[in-house]
Amino acid sequence: MSDILEQSQARQRLRSLGEALDSGALKQVSRILNGGLSPSDIAHLLESSPPRQRALLWNLVDKSLEGEVLQYLSDDIRGYFLSQLNAQELAEVIEDFESDDLADLLQQLPDTVIQEVLDTMDEQDRQRVEEVLAYPEDTAGGLMNTDTITVRPDISIDVVLRYLRRHRSLPPMTDSLIVVSRRDQFVGTLPITKMLVSNPATTVREVMDTDVEPIPVSLSDTQVATLFERYDLISAPVVDDDGNLLGRITIDDVVDVIREDADHSLMSMAGLDEDEDTFAPVLKTSRRRAVWLGINLVTAFIASAVIGLFEDTIEKVVALAVLMPIVASMGGIAGSQTLTLVIRGMAVGQITQDNVGWLLNREFFTSVLNGLLWAVVVAAAAVIWFKDPLIGGVIGAALIINLLAAALVGTVLPLFLKSRNIDPALAGGVILTTVTDVVGFMAFLGLATVFYA
Amino acid sequence: MSDILEQSQARQRLRSLGEALDSGALKQVSRILNGGLSPSDIAHLLESSPPRQRALLWNLVDKSLEGEVLQYLSDDIRGYFLSQLNAQELAEVIEDFESDDLADLLQQLPDTVIQEVLDTMDEQDRQRVEEVLAYPEDTAGGLMNTDTITVRPDISIDVVLRYLRRHRSLPPMTDSLIVVSRRDQFVGTLPITKMLVSNPATTVREVMDTDVEPIPVSLSDTQVATLFERYDLISAPVVDDDGNLLGRITIDDVVDVIREDADHSLMSMAGLDEDEDTFAPVLKTSRRRAVWLGINLVTAFIASAVIGLFEDTIEKVVALAVLMPIVASMGGIAGSQTLTLVIRGMAVGQITQDNVGWLLNREFFTSVLNGLLWAVVVAAAAVIWFKDPLIGGVIGAALIINLLAAALVGTVLPLFLKSRNIDPALAGGVILTTVTDVVGFMAFLGLATVFYA
Repeated sequence: MSDILEQSQARQRLRSLGEALDSGALKQVSRILNGGLSPSDIAHLLESSPPRQRALLWNLVDKSLEGEVLQYLSDDIRGYFLSQLNAQELAEVIEDFESDDLADLLQQLPDTVIQEVLDTMDEQDRQRVEEVLAYPEDTAGGLMNTDTITVRPDISIDVVLRYLRRHRSLPPMTDSLIVVSRRDQFVGTLPITKMLVSNPATTVREVMDTDVEPIPVSLSDTQVATLFERYDLISAPVVDDDGNLLGRITIDDVVDVIREDADHSLMSMAGLDEDEDTFAPVLKTSRRRAVWLGINLVTAFIASAVIGLFEDTIEKVVALAVLMPIVASMGGIAGSQTLTLVIRGMAVGQITQDNVGWLLNREFFTSVLNGLLWAVVVAAAAVIWFKDPLIGGVIGAALIINLLAAALVGTVLPLFLKSRNIDPALAGGVILTTVTDVVGFMAFLGLATVFYA
Repeated sequence: MSDILEQSQARQRLRSLGEALDSGALKQVSRILNGGLSPSDIAHLLESSPPRQRALLWNLVDKSLEGEVLQYLSDDIRGYFLSQLNAQELAEVIEDFESDDLADLLQQLPDTVIQEVLDTMDEQDRQRVEEVLAYPEDTAGGLMNTDTITVRPDISIDVVLRYLRRHRSLPPMTDSLIVVSRRDQFVGTLPITKMLVSNPATTVREVMDTDVEPIPVSLSDTQVATLFERYDLISAPVVDDDGNLLGRITIDDVVDVIREDADHSLMSMAGLDEDEDTFAPVLKTSRRRAVWLGINLVTAFIASAVIGLFEDTIEKVVALAVLMPIVASMGGIAGSQTLTLVIRGMAVGQITQDNVGWLLNREFFTSVLNGLLWAVVVAAAAVIWFKDPLIGGVIGAALIINLLAAALVGTVLPLFLKSRNIDPALAGGVILTTVTDVVGFMAFLGLATVFYA
């Protein structure tokens, strides 16, 4: 039954949209775009489109939808569309943004543009924006909304219910009201589901949860995500250092943080940005990739320089040139397994100074075992291939040495980098490969030089 | 103010726990464990502990908490603890599991054990378990709970409120009630927040949302996650092919899917399981890693075999041996950038058959630009190093050829693998490296053989 399958419906709409675009039936495109699709669908469509098609589609999006669509776009693409609006248009687009999305967006703009936008706003909006810009984007303050519904502890549930009924609607993701004192100090939360099963005559104080710890405004967004994941939260109150309520964070924004954090490790290890536009144009892509290739070229030249030290040995025993990539590549593979495991373990908070010793130990013995196993295999293969027992011994020993180096660097390097505030996912792989290349070539060709001298 | 910082509180408790463990004060450990920590904290602690400490802690966890703690553990570790329980203990532990968690857990056990556990259960529990086991773990059916609260469309909000008040509590994450027909057909949802601002005299039909599409029970968990992310859902109804309500999915379980899917790409690219136990013991770790090293060893030998074809050329011009890793490694780096981008783009549903042509084109021209740039740099360096203009030309040309091969394979390979139901994140990197090694060595040494002959 396809009518219950939202996914396939949306896909069908996307397909007919694609066909309409191809045939140039822009009116039809516009009708599908602004009639049938949600703002998040439109954002996804824009993100999945090459530049020319993307620009065409964006022009067809209804002015009234632009703001909402922008909220769902990734930073990279949103930044591009924003850069094409003037201050007046910007002010209009962001009028009905929630405060956390507004903060994200404004932090992407140059300071002069922010000032221009602020100038076009009325006093109330300006105040709201300035408040939100006070907190860094990657903290609880940057994630929070100010749309809280608060109640006092001494009123009855019945009064709360009547108070709520005076609203035309409640803010999205309202799973609990926040209980505050007369001075706006956080006291507890009142889950709506709990309120619904309570006797209307009881007071808020009797029903509310007080074991909920509010989130400090300066907590990092990653830690906020950990709290939400660990305690299955839908929304959580945010307080300042004195316990005053500032706003609340909702799960939809936390899900974005989780997705971005998880993507970050994957993309950084390939030298990409987690916010990378899949369909960025050639020039932009080339520029970014060139930097990464350049960095890796330096490490490749370092490896070559090491090989260069042993030119004479290679000239005597060409088999060394044939076999040497095996030692380097096995070290790189083993090292990146350890590195990835440690980076993930650090990201989810499992690995700390306290247990890294055990881990290093485990990786060491794992390398010994795997080193011995594969050294025998590679040595045997080398001996059979080149009919030379000596080369088997040399490559086996070099392999074990390189796997041990890989285990050491793979475990210690990410922790060291993090303590220096360098992103291990970005720099770890490059440094690791340099080490395993250098150690691999040095061990293999060095030993060969000794034994073939 | 540290008392509002749950994080630091928990960390403090963990630290004193660690100290108590070190000093062997087991009574104290037990008190901290069962008194101060939530089940999810205990699970995190277990996951962050090396095997011996982990076994010690698990023995100290209160019997009554074991079930809940197990729910928060990753499959790998949970499987280990479960394997140490007998059928009777298992049946006790899982008594108060939610149905989706129960399904996850049972699917980890051997069939004979499942049968034993079922035999110890009463009729009602057995029926619930068998129902849940009917759906694969990675579908909407495997994610759903059956704890729905349903209402009829023709009753008034007031009646609903009175009906709710008869409950002692509502299921966790209840943000809306589900409206069903007399025959249990899904009709719509009734958000609690909407109900609270409505006139109690209106009917459910007047207030309910009907634009919510229920989730088909066979939808994959990844697609369920996409729906939740795109439409900011907290819970969603699940229906069978005929539109009958089966249960509901809640955001807490979806967050786990998002985390696992994102981790999957990262871990698979290093040949690791996304559920990998960071603190697995040496033997288990070594066995798993050995397989991955063995697979990569095959590709390394293939590369060596290619070099072996050109032994005579290398013997004549040893500089080739020194420079050849540069060509292979630059190809590998460029290729893994493309591969990672495409794998991520496929995972979030941005890349399809429709736009892969554009992407291939973009990657081709990006490689041309970067190939030309770095070919000039590398050629110049090679000429200066070895005072031989010919080697500069050869390495420059080989570099461009290898970057083009990397772009082609990096773009097309993951789509091809996926169409064959092979996981691109797992197999992609190995195949890509084989190609860039083979093409790199072949192009460089082959051209050299032609020009130095």
